[in-house]
Amino acid sequence: MKILIDAMGGDNAPLCVLQGAAQAAAEFGDGMTLALLGDEKAIRDCAAENKIDLTPFEIIPCSEVVDMHDDPVKAARHKTDSSMIKGLTMLKNGEGDAFVSAGSTGALHVGTSLIVRTLKGIKRPALATPMPGAKQNFLLLDCGANAECRPDMLNAFGTMGSVYAEKVMGRKDPQVALVNNGAEDTKGTPTYREAHQLLKANPCIHFAGNIEPRYILDGEVDVVVCDGFVGNVVLKLTEGVAKTLLGMLKQVFLKNLITKLSYLGIKGGLSEIKRMMDSEEVGGAPLLGAAKPVIKAHGSSKAKGIKNAIRQAKTCVANDLCGTMQTALNALETKPQA
Amino acid sequence: MKILIDAMGGDNAPLCVLQGAAQAAAEFGDGMTLALLGDEKAIRDCAAENKIDLTPFEIIPCSEVVDMHDDPVKAARHKTDSSMIKGLTMLKNGEGDAFVSAGSTGALHVGTSLIVRTLKGIKRPALATPMPGAKQNFLLLDCGANAECRPDMLNAFGTMGSVYAEKVMGRKDPQVALVNNGAEDTKGTPTYREAHQLLKANPCIHFAGNIEPRYILDGEVDVVVCDGFVGNVVLKLTEGVAKTLLGMLKQVFLKNLITKLSYLGIKGGLSEIKRMMDSEEVGGAPLLGAAKPVIKAHGSSKAKGIKNAIRQAKTCVANDLCGTMQTALNALETKPQA
Repeated sequence: MKILIDAMGGDNAPLCVLQGAAQAAAEFGDGMTLALLGDEKAIRDCAAENKIDLTPFEIIPCSEVVDMHDDPVKAARHKTDSSMIKGLTMLKNGEGDAFVSAGSTGALHVGTSLIVRTLKGIKRPALATPMPGAKQNFLLLDCGANAECRPDMLNAFGTMGSVYAEKVMGRKDPQVALVNNGAEDTKGTPTYREAHQLLKANPCIHFAGNIEPRYILDGEVDVVVCDGFVGNVVLKLTEGVAKTLLGMLKQVFLKNLITKLSYLGIKGGLSEIKRMMDSEEVGGAPLLGAAKPVIKAHGSSKAKGIKNAIRQAKTCVANDLCGTMQTALNALETKPQA
Repeated sequence: MKILIDAMGGDNAPLCVLQGAAQAAAEFGDGMTLALLGDEKAIRDCAAENKIDLTPFEIIPCSEVVDMHDDPVKAARHKTDSSMIKGLTMLKNGEGDAFVSAGSTGALHVGTSLIVRTLKGIKRPALATPMPGAKQNFLLLDCGANAECRPDMLNAFGTMGSVYAEKVMGRKDPQVALVNNGAEDTKGTPTYREAHQLLKANPCIHFAGNIEPRYILDGEVDVVVCDGFVGNVVLKLTEGVAKTLLGMLKQVFLKNLITKLSYLGIKGGLSEIKRMMDSEEVGGAPLLGAAKPVIKAHGSSKAKGIKNAIRQAKTCVANDLCGTMQTALNALETKPQA
């Protein structure tokens, strides 16, 4: 198995990518080739400076970088020798089994669609983000790749999310729910009402019905389906509310000597909460529906985030995620729709 | 000025409605008539049992109650002697200047549309909820009354929200923002892109551009505009995340003796955070676009929530909210659109 890694993508590249790849190689690298794509001099200088051993890695030199300001479509078409686009092209050509990048989400999404292409029945991949839940983590999709969705797209998200939850997150009979502003199947817009009916009739998933926004973070289901506009709101608002509340809490602790002492008493517990809400802990976001595994690590990933994304990529390949997903999508296609 | 109050609406009626109305009468009832609508015996028994003085109130007996299980349209058409529908009818007929209810949101919304009717240019009122922000409270609309919205509806929400922020929340030159998954005006669905252009050209508001979900809770703007599906997600997810995080925090404090002692140290500060996130503190939700002021208090309102909703109703009437709003909407109508 060979995993292609964009060494130049993300706010902390190449250092944190190299560190994360080194941790991945040490922890679960047996039988895998990890290939680092990027500016060879930058990679070697950074490794030397930070005492990172490059022996476990194949280095694939690239002369360009896709940055956050690049137009996604132009980048995908023209920056062919960039670490991101070259990686996607190698993946397409069978010169690697999965691709991991912490670079521009837009460029990765467009590049994946144009170069790696999609499974039959899927027009554009969905960005699926693992999120922390009170009971357990869950997968939210789409998180922003497809702002507007037809009911059949939401149904396909349910199928793909379910396969990912089973094959990569290790969930048995994953429960899939649809975001909606009420539990009744008459709730929501016409699109959501129709999606509800399609998901209910979907033979490939266990549909738990609508989930109201108030209960999403409970983590009682494995997969939460919505369009990319709503998914972006769910993902980013959760981060915003958590940040606001933890910020308020910090002010409370800074008040006086007694509150500062109190802070010492519960410091460990607070770190635990922060760890639970930590996106890096939860992992990278797979582009579901791509013909081969592509994992988007957070732009702000540190070493741990990169390592976890590489682990996800490995599990995708080992469990033939894309093949299983295509089989499930085919079952959906051939089922006569009511 | 006469304010009509649904004494039978909400989870804690009639007790908390009577208590809230009594507090309102004591604190800012001068020159106002507060009319309680409901089962006269239930009101008098409850008042006697809880030593609430009914002297300040006019009591308007009603023989029916709209409950949470009633179909909104049927309730609005047929439960004509219920506290909610009778109240809306009296408002329509000029037998009162504003209506406050903690009863079924659906029935109140439909009843308001059908009976009180809407301002010219508005087909269905928007449910606008004051939300707690880190810097200051802000008004979110629509919060669920209109799941699907056209661009011109989102633009009207901006106008109405701005007038409310100025006239009732006391904000000078209120800033209005549109929820979107990016700051650029090319972001979002076609509906949101068009709404952005309309809001930008709207002469009645100060448009601050798109607001990303991550920053909504910062409270940097006064009015946040979105469709009812997204607004429901923003409102309810915020409650869910806050509940989940505060729940985690509680577990941390219960861990051992040291953490329990720490809790004592910051107890006051935590109450302050809870108070800031408290929907009752922030107030009831006006149905903006109704021809006369209608305020929806939370279903779970205690006395404080009812009192604050009555205060909002009073301010709406005193500052001629609906008249000002109609003038602003007219300016929008007559402005030639690009």
